[in-house]
Amino acid sequence: MSQTSQPIGIFDSGIGGLSVAYAILHQLPAELLLYFGDTAHIPYGTKPASTIRRYSENICRFLLDQGCKLIVVACNTASAAALNHLRHLWPDVPIVGMEPAVKPGALATRTGKVGVLATAGTFKSQRYASLMHRFAKEVELLENPCLGLVERIEAGQLDGPETEQLLRSIINPMLAAGADAFVLGCTHYPFVQPLIEKIAGPDIAIINPAPAVARQVERLLHESGQLSMEPLPHHRFFISGKDEDGHFKRMAKTLLGFSPELISGHLI
Amino acid sequence: MSQTSQPIGIFDSGIGGLSVAYAILHQLPAELLLYFGDTAHIPYGTKPASTIRRYSENICRFLLDQGCKLIVVACNTASAAALNHLRHLWPDVPIVGMEPAVKPGALATRTGKVGVLATAGTFKSQRYASLMHRFAKEVELLENPCLGLVERIEAGQLDGPETEQLLRSIINPMLAAGADAFVLGCTHYPFVQPLIEKIAGPDIAIINPAPAVARQVERLLHESGQLSMEPLPHHRFFISGKDEDGHFKRMAKTLLGFSPELISGHLI
Repeated sequence: MSQTSQPIGIFDSGIGGLSVAYAILHQLPAELLLYFGDTAHIPYGTKPASTIRRYSENICRFLLDQGCKLIVVACNTASAAALNHLRHLWPDVPIVGMEPAVKPGALATRTGKVGVLATAGTFKSQRYASLMHRFAKEVELLENPCLGLVERIEAGQLDGPETEQLLRSIINPMLAAGADAFVLGCTHYPFVQPLIEKIAGPDIAIINPAPAVARQVERLLHESGQLSMEPLPHHRFFISGKDEDGHFKRMAKTLLGFSPELISGHLI
Repeated sequence: MSQTSQPIGIFDSGIGGLSVAYAILHQLPAELLLYFGDTAHIPYGTKPASTIRRYSENICRFLLDQGCKLIVVACNTASAAALNHLRHLWPDVPIVGMEPAVKPGALATRTGKVGVLATAGTFKSQRYASLMHRFAKEVELLENPCLGLVERIEAGQLDGPETEQLLRSIINPMLAAGADAFVLGCTHYPFVQPLIEKIAGPDIAIINPAPAVARQVERLLHESGQLSMEPLPHHRFFISGKDEDGHFKRMAKTLLGFSPELISGHLI
């Protein structure tokens, strides 16, 4: 396998990193992904940093053994605990980590108050302390470790009344304190972004770092000449009629079990 | 592109051929598909054979221009009207067609009476006449051109009361006449197979030809040395925990928009 066609490795404690995987799939449709969700050890956010480092090292070794050309630590807690350690172990591998998007939050706020939603592990980290230090003069960071939120999202409770109540208890005090920008500092949280938007209203900025991470992955692969050159081979579906209402696409998804690439209006 | 990695071309008037595409995807997961649904001209079943031949020729030319190594005419009406014509035009291309599965129906029946569900175009064809002639001594074929059924399936009405009423008006007289095997002689009909099973009951054989067509495709590609050797590159998702209830897979499908290949219980 050539360098360019090797997969991008990506890991998280569970499904949270799928928000980053989703962004990478859309930003870089020619790249293969190899995802690892450490669901046997979830949640990471409340475990000691040394434990998280050990898990992360083992997963990283697995992903590299599988031929990954770049690693995305798609977990804020693991990035805080293990990113430096992983870069030290594998200095030649590009490794991208997460951090709470405090800088975009600082750019977005008009009130100067930014709500940061992250895990306890992230807030306790040196990585976060240095972010705080850097932006402390510009903005006030309002923090909440969102206890139980990762577990609710893992359980698929993305929009039930209990998740909404939990989120209200996190968001409302920040709104009352004047926050007008919210930073999603855990890769699980973008999956409840619609609910956060419903609670916070339309005038609030919500910052999901996944698209920026996907662009960073693209930049690094481009610099090292490892961007995939060939689009992934894929099934293609043409229809001669229009599919303005998406009916054919929905039917195809129902009947095939996946949503095919569809080129409509291809009259011949 | 090498011969083996070229796509299999497959066409139909609309979504019906997806039942054949589905069978091929499962029988030959390493093969690429290129599907053409002629939805601008649907339905085929009530159009003159000369018109269907013209459409089929144009579509076939398009599929071959796209590099297809084998063509599946995944439409009984087009197979009846155009298969010989297409094979005459492209004698070097393996072309697989559909025909009502009268032989498997004849093998399955104990009463000697087989219900054949097809379109008017198929029943009027020489291909069907020759099938009838071949099996007339063994079994009695009870025919119904299922007027309006293709349109209902194209509209996505796979299990509503109106589709059920239409199917009862087709199936019940055949049951009353003693049929105990039903041949799905149009590639659209497998999508209402659950409804036909509900109406006809458990002791009735229902024959969907798609899996046999997929095996025929495999045989022809194997003979010509054109079977794809390399599995299609695909994203892979590992989790360290179990996924006994399919929760992770469902969540991943919700969050990513497709159902990933998932390897669970991969503890490291």
